[in-house]
Amino acid sequence: MNAPESLLNQARNGDRRALGRAITLIESTRRDHREQARRLLEAALPESGKAIRLGITGTPGVGKSTFIETFGLHLLEAGRRVAVVAVDPSSKRGGGSILGDKTRMPELSRSLDAFIRPSPTAGTLGGVARRTRETMLLLESVGYDVVIVETVGVGQSETAVAEMVDMFLLLLSPAGGDELQGIKKGVVELADLFLINKADGDLEKAAQRAAAEYRHALGLLKPSYKDWQPKVQLCSALTGAGISKVWETVTAFHESLAPSGALKDRRAAQAQAWFWQTLEEGLLQTLKDDPAVKAALPALEGAVRDGTTTPTLAAEDLLARFLRRS
Amino acid sequence: MNAPESLLNQARNGDRRALGRAITLIESTRRDHREQARRLLEAALPESGKAIRLGITGTPGVGKSTFIETFGLHLLEAGRRVAVVAVDPSSKRGGGSILGDKTRMPELSRSLDAFIRPSPTAGTLGGVARRTRETMLLLESVGYDVVIVETVGVGQSETAVAEMVDMFLLLLSPAGGDELQGIKKGVVELADLFLINKADGDLEKAAQRAAAEYRHALGLLKPSYKDWQPKVQLCSALTGAGISKVWETVTAFHESLAPSGALKDRRAAQAQAWFWQTLEEGLLQTLKDDPAVKAALPALEGAVRDGTTTPTLAAEDLLARFLRRS
Repeated sequence: MNAPESLLNQARNGDRRALGRAITLIESTRRDHREQARRLLEAALPESGKAIRLGITGTPGVGKSTFIETFGLHLLEAGRRVAVVAVDPSSKRGGGSILGDKTRMPELSRSLDAFIRPSPTAGTLGGVARRTRETMLLLESVGYDVVIVETVGVGQSETAVAEMVDMFLLLLSPAGGDELQGIKKGVVELADLFLINKADGDLEKAAQRAAAEYRHALGLLKPSYKDWQPKVQLCSALTGAGISKVWETVTAFHESLAPSGALKDRRAAQAQAWFWQTLEEGLLQTLKDDPAVKAALPALEGAVRDGTTTPTLAAEDLLARFLRRS
Repeated sequence: MNAPESLLNQARNGDRRALGRAITLIESTRRDHREQARRLLEAALPESGKAIRLGITGTPGVGKSTFIETFGLHLLEAGRRVAVVAVDPSSKRGGGSILGDKTRMPELSRSLDAFIRPSPTAGTLGGVARRTRETMLLLESVGYDVVIVETVGVGQSETAVAEMVDMFLLLLSPAGGDELQGIKKGVVELADLFLINKADGDLEKAAQRAAAEYRHALGLLKPSYKDWQPKVQLCSALTGAGISKVWETVTAFHESLAPSGALKDRRAAQAQAWFWQTLEEGLLQTLKDDPAVKAALPALEGAVRDGTTTPTLAAEDLLARFLRRS
């Protein structure tokens, strides 16, 4: 049996080291690894697509790790197998990325029914997102039925994550409306569920006030799905209050979108968008690597910024240079 | 003297028919016209960039035409020369486009210091936006010092307009918060000024309530510029109430952003983004026109949507076919 298919079978039989090696193949940029990863994914695809895909983001200090730990343990109790992956284009393996640190979720990472994988090491957001998406497909195919994709909110990572999951959760503190100002443009509109964490002890009243504020603000914005109005809920990762309600909402979300085919359509549209995005990135990279383009680009781009040429004229010029060469 | 440069001079000397013909050159897709347009734009560029560029959108029935008419006449009284252009990828010349109808702004269109140009005829949003941008540069170079770019809100046209103007105005009715639900995702966040029109007679109280609601909702969202907090104002295009205040806000906006260089930086960034976008569109079109790509694309895209291949594998496959050919 060939190596990638054999790795996949070992991973399906519960061999966590084989699963880790399979993901490493997916994350590698080496040409021979890419070929092995291609075979691995082709073998994995028929069994993928069965998990619930959840994206999670949150403002710093809101307790994202503790939430994922508590929520993940709840899912294990409910008989689910949970995988946690991350999109963090700034992470460097060994460089002390918080996402690389499994001690963030000590109990969850010890369970045999949970698998935690840090973000692929630093690269473009597109590259990191590609590897995370493919890792997600692999994890689904070996039997994880809830995949949580976490983002640290660097660059456009929330959008990248929203484009690969079914449902997007935004974790907030009980600080109230002012907090939304600290969240990047567009992120609020990605969220299908707003969770106000730390709703315990002295902060419970503040969390309730914040929830009322968010509900009012959300009522003024257009919802993301036709069949789903974003919800605001309270929870406490510390006491566990509201955690089972989060899972109820996630399943209610799936039950309201799956039968109509809305979920399937969304996944098909996500895959198609990802295809075109990959194609465009590949094309653009080919153009940027072209010697004639490299020679002309700096002056042209400067002239565009200065307004001494129009963007259209400059683009036509550069494209002609590229096509003449290739 | 050559034709395009001569047309430009005639337009600068107030010949409106020459100006119309120059814009027709810019809008044409004929190869010989494109070459003449290139020369025209190169001659126009040194004198462009001096206008205040305003984008305007609004929900249907909010009175956009009446607003532009009243606002435009106010600008003429203030000694300004006003041009109104539009982005409407659905418009068809002669097909009864509302934007093609100058009777929408009867007084403004009769003034010699105003120039109204309907949207370029139907095409891709990218194509329509390109022609509108270039027309805007031309209008600036012949002395119009306020350019209003209107959008009917089809497709992604608001984003396209926001990416070519300095300031974006969102016209609303006094209906209140529920109205924001009818506005497309992301548009609210583009607006630098929210104008509640029809704040007259019986509707004035409702307009004031709506303004308070919007101000609250906006307080929860992150502003678009560092130096500018979006504002909510009332006006009545019918009675003229609040119209001079709109112009005061527009000039205040310019005065708060121009000295710091923020406006110049924004325009440079817009031009640069437009350049890359044009380049990517041109590249993608070249790929799509390739016979090998045309033959393989339908099956690959279907497999991506069905999940029988991954987007990355399909994109790599298609890109290899394209590069092998060219």
